[in-house]
Amino acid sequence: MHSVLLLNGPNLNLLGSREPEIYGAATLPEIEEMCRLWGAELGLEVDCRQSNHEGELVELIHGAASGRSGIVINAGAFTHTSVALLDAVRAVGLPTVEVHLSNVHARESFRRRSYIAQAALGAISGFGADSYRLALQALALHLTATGSPVGG
Amino acid sequence: MHSVLLLNGPNLNLLGSREPEIYGAATLPEIEEMCRLWGAELGLEVDCRQSNHEGELVELIHGAASGRSGIVINAGAFTHTSVALLDAVRAVGLPTVEVHLSNVHARESFRRRSYIAQAALGAISGFGADSYRLALQALALHLTATGSPVGG
Amino acid sequence: MHSVLLLNGPNLNLLGSREPEIYGAATLPEIEEMCRLWGAELGLEVDCRQSNHEGELVELIHGAASGRSGIVINAGAFTHTSVALLDAVRAVGLPTVEVHLSNVHARESFRRRSYIAQAALGAISGFGADSYRLALQALALHLTATGSPVGG
Amino acid sequence: MHSVLLLNGPNLNLLGSREPEIYGAATLPEIEEMCRLWGAELGLEVDCRQSNHEGELVELIHGAASGRSGIVINAGAFTHTSVALLDAVRAVGLPTVEVHLSNVHARESFRRRSYIAQAALGAISGFGADSYRLALQALALHLTATGSPVGG
Amino acid sequence: MHSVLLLNGPNLNLLGSREPEIYGAATLPEIEEMCRLWGAELGLEVDCRQSNHEGELVELIHGAASGRSGIVINAGAFTHTSVALLDAVRAVGLPTVEVHLSNVHARESFRRRSYIAQAALGAISGFGADSYRLALQALALHLTATGSPVGG
Amino acid sequence: MHSVLLLNGPNLNLLGSREPEIYGAATLPEIEEMCRLWGAELGLEVDCRQSNHEGELVELIHGAASGRSGIVINAGAFTHTSVALLDAVRAVGLPTVEVHLSNVHARESFRRRSYIAQAALGAISGFGADSYRLALQALALHLTATGSPVGG
Amino acid sequence: MHSVLLLNGPNLNLLGSREPEIYGAATLPEIEEMCRLWGAELGLEVDCRQSNHEGELVELIHGAASGRSGIVINAGAFTHTSVALLDAVRAVGLPTVEVHLSNVHARESFRRRSYIAQAALGAISGFGADSYRLALQALALHLTATGSPVGG
Amino acid sequence: MHSVLLLNGPNLNLLGSREPEIYGAATLPEIEEMCRLWGAELGLEVDCRQSNHEGELVELIHGAASGRSGIVINAGAFTHTSVALLDAVRAVGLPTVEVHLSNVHARESFRRRSYIAQAALGAISGFGADSYRLALQALALHLTATGSPVGG
Amino acid sequence: MHSVLLLNGPNLNLLGSREPEIYGAATLPEIEEMCRLWGAELGLEVDCRQSNHEGELVELIHGAASGRSGIVINAGAFTHTSVALLDAVRAVGLPTVEVHLSNVHARESFRRRSYIAQAALGAISGFGADSYRLALQALALHLTATGSPVGG
Amino acid sequence: MHSVLLLNGPNLNLLGSREPEIYGAATLPEIEEMCRLWGAELGLEVDCRQSNHEGELVELIHGAASGRSGIVINAGAFTHTSVALLDAVRAVGLPTVEVHLSNVHARESFRRRSYIAQAALGAISGFGADSYRLALQALALHLTATGSPVGG
Amino acid sequence: MHSVLLLNGPNLNLLGSREPEIYGAATLPEIEEMCRLWGAELGLEVDCRQSNHEGELVELIHGAASGRSGIVINAGAFTHTSVALLDAVRAVGLPTVEVHLSNVHARESFRRRSYIAQAALGAISGFGADSYRLALQALALHLTATGSPVGG
Amino acid sequence: MHSVLLLNGPNLNLLGSREPEIYGAATLPEIEEMCRLWGAELGLEVDCRQSNHEGELVELIHGAASGRSGIVINAGAFTHTSVALLDAVRAVGLPTVEVHLSNVHARESFRRRSYIAQAALGAISGFGADSYRLALQALALHLTATGSPVGG
Repeated sequence: MHSVLLLNGPNLNLLGSREPEIYGAATLPEIEEMCRLWGAELGLEVDCRQSNHEGELVELIHGAASGRSGIVINAGAFTHTSVALLDAVRAVGLPTVEVHLSNVHARESFRRRSYIAQAALGAISGFGADSYRLALQALALHLTATGSPVGG
Repeated sequence: MHSVLLLNGPNLNLLGSREPEIYGAATLPEIEEMCRLWGAELGLEVDCRQSNHEGELVELIHGAASGRSGIVINAGAFTHTSVALLDAVRAVGLPTVEVHLSNVHARESFRRRSYIAQAALGAISGFGADSYRLALQALALHLTATGSPVGG
Repeated sequence: MHSVLLLNGPNLNLLGSREPEIYGAATLPEIEEMCRLWGAELGLEVDCRQSNHEGELVELIHGAASGRSGIVINAGAFTHTSVALLDAVRAVGLPTVEVHLSNVHARESFRRRSYIAQAALGAISGFGADSYRLALQALALHLTATGSPVGG
Repeated sequence: MHSVLLLNGPNLNLLGSREPEIYGAATLPEIEEMCRLWGAELGLEVDCRQSNHEGELVELIHGAASGRSGIVINAGAFTHTSVALLDAVRAVGLPTVEVHLSNVHARESFRRRSYIAQAALGAISGFGADSYRLALQALALHLTATGSPVGG
Repeated sequence: MHSVLLLNGPNLNLLGSREPEIYGAATLPEIEEMCRLWGAELGLEVDCRQSNHEGELVELIHGAASGRSGIVINAGAFTHTSVALLDAVRAVGLPTVEVHLSNVHARESFRRRSYIAQAALGAISGFGADSYRLALQALALHLTATGSPVGG
Repeated sequence: MHSVLLLNGPNLNLLGSREPEIYGAATLPEIEEMCRLWGAELGLEVDCRQSNHEGELVELIHGAASGRSGIVINAGAFTHTSVALLDAVRAVGLPTVEVHLSNVHARESFRRRSYIAQAALGAISGFGADSYRLALQALALHLTATGSPVGG
Repeated sequence: MHSVLLLNGPNLNLLGSREPEIYGAATLPEIEEMCRLWGAELGLEVDCRQSNHEGELVELIHGAASGRSGIVINAGAFTHTSVALLDAVRAVGLPTVEVHLSNVHARESFRRRSYIAQAALGAISGFGADSYRLALQALALHLTATGSPVGG
Repeated sequence: MHSVLLLNGPNLNLLGSREPEIYGAATLPEIEEMCRLWGAELGLEVDCRQSNHEGELVELIHGAASGRSGIVINAGAFTHTSVALLDAVRAVGLPTVEVHLSNVHARESFRRRSYIAQAALGAISGFGADSYRLALQALALHLTATGSPVGG
Repeated sequence: MHSVLLLNGPNLNLLGSREPEIYGAATLPEIEEMCRLWGAELGLEVDCRQSNHEGELVELIHGAASGRSGIVINAGAFTHTSVALLDAVRAVGLPTVEVHLSNVHARESFRRRSYIAQAALGAISGFGADSYRLALQALALHLTATGSPVGG
Repeated sequence: MHSVLLLNGPNLNLLGSREPEIYGAATLPEIEEMCRLWGAELGLEVDCRQSNHEGELVELIHGAASGRSGIVINAGAFTHTSVALLDAVRAVGLPTVEVHLSNVHARESFRRRSYIAQAALGAISGFGADSYRLALQALALHLTATGSPVGG
Repeated sequence: MHSVLLLNGPNLNLLGSREPEIYGAATLPEIEEMCRLWGAELGLEVDCRQSNHEGELVELIHGAASGRSGIVINAGAFTHTSVALLDAVRAVGLPTVEVHLSNVHARESFRRRSYIAQAALGAISGFGADSYRLALQALALHLTATGSPVGG
Repeated sequence: MHSVLLLNGPNLNLLGSREPEIYGAATLPEIEEMCRLWGAELGLEVDCRQSNHEGELVELIHGAASGRSGIVINAGAFTHTSVALLDAVRAVGLPTVEVHLSNVHARESFRRRSYIAQAALGAISGFGADSYRLALQALALHLTATGSPVGG
């Protein structure tokens, strides 16, 4: 069974209370629980982590190099400002799916730039909590299609 | 049962033969057949159309206003140059999912701009033919979540 | 009696149903009928055409070279993206009035650029269906002032 | 009967002598007299003012708030440089039509930016003195359509 | 007792009636009266002036060189377009506090540039009429801290 | 009595020793002590925190959601680079005053952009330690004016 | 004998009548006839097509994949705006020579960008009808040098 | 004898006291007196005017059309922001020499743009009060060379 | 018989050894010999020169004014950086064809700008040594068509 | 003996495994050990630290103010995004050498901007692990040349 | 008696024959002779040099350091492209006047940038050969005013 | 023993006298002598050349192709403007180290662009004459590490 890291970045711990008209009403623990269930259906063990610290996210990505087969990441605000996360994803070389709850391309112009996209397999944005569900499915399909060995 | 329009833009009729290292080996008819099957599993009737003509794509979107519940669109090169498609999607007001086979954000800079994104529900890019599968699922989830009536 | 071509571009066939808070409630056939009446009062025969196809619009402009004395054009989204329409207007050399229903200068930044303006006599924007009325009047005044012969 | 303010900005007092190949041969008093006549036909009393002073134009706009139903303004060079005029038009909230004698969009690039357009109902450019005639008509049509009370 | 000049620029004479949701409901005379009272509490004589004319504002700043100890200025729209005001403030060399009623940094992009900021001591924006109160206090604190002699 | 969070960002722990010609000679503990005293006079309990870590600042803002009535923040260098802090302030929805010791608008161009300004009530810059004093007063005036309940 | 596709884009059907001081006095049929003759001398069968429709041009390029050894294309205005034509040329992989009648680099700035150049073998511009002659010769030389098999 | 207008713009009335390290120690009346003397030597009557008002400068230029043979103008800050002055100089069509006391090209970037340069005969900058002397001489040489009639 | 100058700029003396995958395997003397032969067939005497010195290239162009009928120039790197070469070509007024071995439009962005294009008759790029052959032919066709007298 | 801080930023803990074709095969501990040896030869005690946290790097720089004579820093991705590190280096005022393993100027455009360069003594990039060796030597030479006292 | 270097850059040796409608009909030797006469009247020995070689111009500036009191330079095209000339002028530290025959600010946009202006005393442009005369006078006035010793 | 070329560009012959606060007090012959000594210690024969001529520098690089193992180059001002030097370095393919005396990244913005960096092994800037010493060492280390044969 493949194990994947599901990573959430800054402010996503406030989901449910933070601007629900943009980000939806589900809390992060609720979404993470759903992700674990969706993962189970897809044959993926989903390890859910959140951090507001760029450095911790970098290290969680580093840690995924041993034992994980892929990464689903919603880097939040760091999507647009962090070259360090891009370098981290490139360094570990795991298939990585970029996720956004909202349609970032239709918001402020500074949200249109994604550094992490340079190293990602693909991106899914705009479907609220379902963005994670689709991302897990995308990763599962990719792992199956490429016959990635369990554990990276 | 919801009926959705799956629209492919310019050059996508060459899928399978066109730069397969970027776009994959499946032909468009094969992908469309898969989309109909995936749609059936999701309770969606999928009407597949392709055109190399911006005007025809505009009119196919117009036509979707009667009888369709949503649109999945891979506008190909028109993604980056067509304001007319953006206006068409806005005009019909149907939930629309933007799809790309490749990760457009990691290619030439002129492929990073998407006009259609301004009016889309969300976007999925980078997963080859599976991008369509995920898009259909995203649309199905959206139609269920919002209780959209059958036929728009 | 002067004959003029009144040309409408992409998505304008949806007038009346498309974002009426921006574009007004009158349908295109209603507006075209009004244009023919307004034209008659001004001594202009008004030939109304609409197309969602850039190529067709180019050819309708070409066709105007024989028999028409001028052009009123609402190129819609093509205003902002089509060099081909600019070249077509330059090629036929007829006095051409650019029309917009909404005040394009107060909308998205990409709607501020007009290629066609480089070759137009002048522009009228922001008055809904009355933009056409004023454009026909502007053209009639121009044809009278310059003593243009009937038929270009 | 509606009263409207017709405002001309810097250098327009030189009309008739200033670059007549661009701006036409009619003098400002001649144009203003025509505007009063055109206004009379449209049921509008037209109060014509010209100033080379940004501050005076701002104050003439302020003054229009009491007793005028709308504004027709050719801000000349201030169109491209004055945020103060934009703020003045926004502040009084009267329907305002932007006018230009020449087709500003086909001239130097710095003439393409119009601050005042952000607050205007619409714009008319390129028809020489007839631009004013059309603008008065546009304003008259707007006042009728919206049933604006006499006197703002 | 220090005397300071409180200068308001274009359109600020309309305060109270102009877009009150942005600028508040207090009129300029009311704000000026409050400023005189706040000044008195701070040991400052506050001379309040307003002009819609860039040239008059330049000259009011020049005049402050004799007898005033500092300037509080809300240059309104001229903040973003006037190099002359910047040069005037530099020329007289008085400590100057830039004030804005609204948070200009969260509005249109052309309101983000402030020429006057290049020569100002500091800036206060976003607190409505209280912006003036805080600016007077800032100036009083500065004059005390630097032991500026009365009268510049 | 309202409780407010006074937050200082990276390098501000070095105040007093760091480029005193720009930032002044007072140390951070001295300034914080003054802030507590100024707060007391204004009826505000001032909780002072400093961090060099973007993630900690994000979490301190999150924590303010319960029990605090507002935030005064000098985000230092993060002002210009952190979208995460902007999102945090938006997420908690508390009235927030942006503070800078120096006049950032008169320094390097990259210091002119403030992300946090998009969500702030207002900003105060250029008055050294007094910037905090004025910010606390601005917040106190705002809380009084809006009748904010104690504790957010 | 190699067969090549000679493709002309929008407005080129008007050659001879359209701005002859820029584009020359020869009509398109005359130029096409000359091209067939020039081709014959070079051992090339030249199939001449013109369209004002971007979609048709895309499909004509697609069609060239079977039976043609190369493409000479004057995409006219689409040179500067069409990513779809670039993608089409890339998709079929035939050696393609970009042609312009006028020296596009010395005209309006928007005519300097060529999308199609990204996939072309080379470009020839500025020699009027002779540009085609030189392009055919360039293609013939290329086909000989690379020993391209007849029929692509 | 030719009569010329020597025009000084905003803040130049402060010469001598304003940043003398940049602008020199001579006062404006002293410089004007020198200009009259230099003019007399060159056979020019020099009419010296200064205004801080853009509108007045526009009108002084208008007034020069009758009776003056040329203009020497130091538009100060308006050099960089006023399209109205450019239009005024174009409108009167008199030979105009642009003058600056300091070398504007070596200062802030916003001082590098000169609108008035578009219509000026030439420019002289960087020589302090001598810039005027050289400008008068340049104008005298031009008037002699072109045999301009006295009085424009 | 027309005599033409064939000019090669910096680094082109290394042809054959320099990045042959971009520039081909023929050496400059070999190409120059071919050019003389191709010229002879076209009735052109071809004088071949190469220099790595911008100043020498300028002077070779100057020298062509007497006795040459046209210029073929591959300015190499100076294409993108030298205004002096543009001015030289403009100064002598000879018909000039710009040549590039590689397709410069598909390389680094700084290679897209050509100063010399502003004064050239036309340009040919991308065909290796054949670019020169085609350029000579283009020049011969031009000289014939315009009936240029021998010797400029 | 001088003590210097050698600081490595985000992702550099992965050296040896991360994209070795760009960054080399030596691990960070191996490089740090070499640095200590190289330092010893140069009379420098080298204290090696690495962090993926911007805030920790800021604080390590702060800490260097007491006891260290200089800093060698490879800020990795933070080079391009962190104003906080620039401010930290400025605040402590120690001679600082910027290091990069790869030649950052020949990579993605966003890697060309270095904030830290504004405050650094100099920079060394492109020599793999030897970049550190050269940086230590540069710092040793600087400390000797300026006679810096031991311990800052 | 002061000796000054009068330096002319590329293509200026063609004066009189090169685009005389822009640059005038006088040849360079004629202008140089006039400059020597004008210099004599001003008490300046004028050493006239011209080169089309950037390197020679650099070295002529170097040579001026011994024996010359100042430089008048028309760097022609190098004005806009040469940082080396800027560095040379800075290196020798002589008062330098920048000259242009035409009004460079009213021509192509790339002629608006002057590197040399960063180090020049001032600039004179637009007066044809008289630009040199005025420049010599400006330099003479400067040398007198600053009491520069003969010979730099 | 490896032989390397040490190349200095324009104005570097003035070292010692030119702005010594930026470039140091050592003359070029002194630095070159030091470089020969440093080279000898490193087992490198150092051939020192300087030229103010771009073309000569290009040719010195060409010449290095036979007999030299590498290049150390301080291209001075040409760093920022010369594509020809970039092409020359690419053409010869020798390992090349870019050197600057000052920290170019902390100076005028136009000094931040380095064309030569695109082809260099690495760069060293900011350490005065020691920059050369470090560059020689970097080159020696590289030649050893890659086992480059003597003589390129």
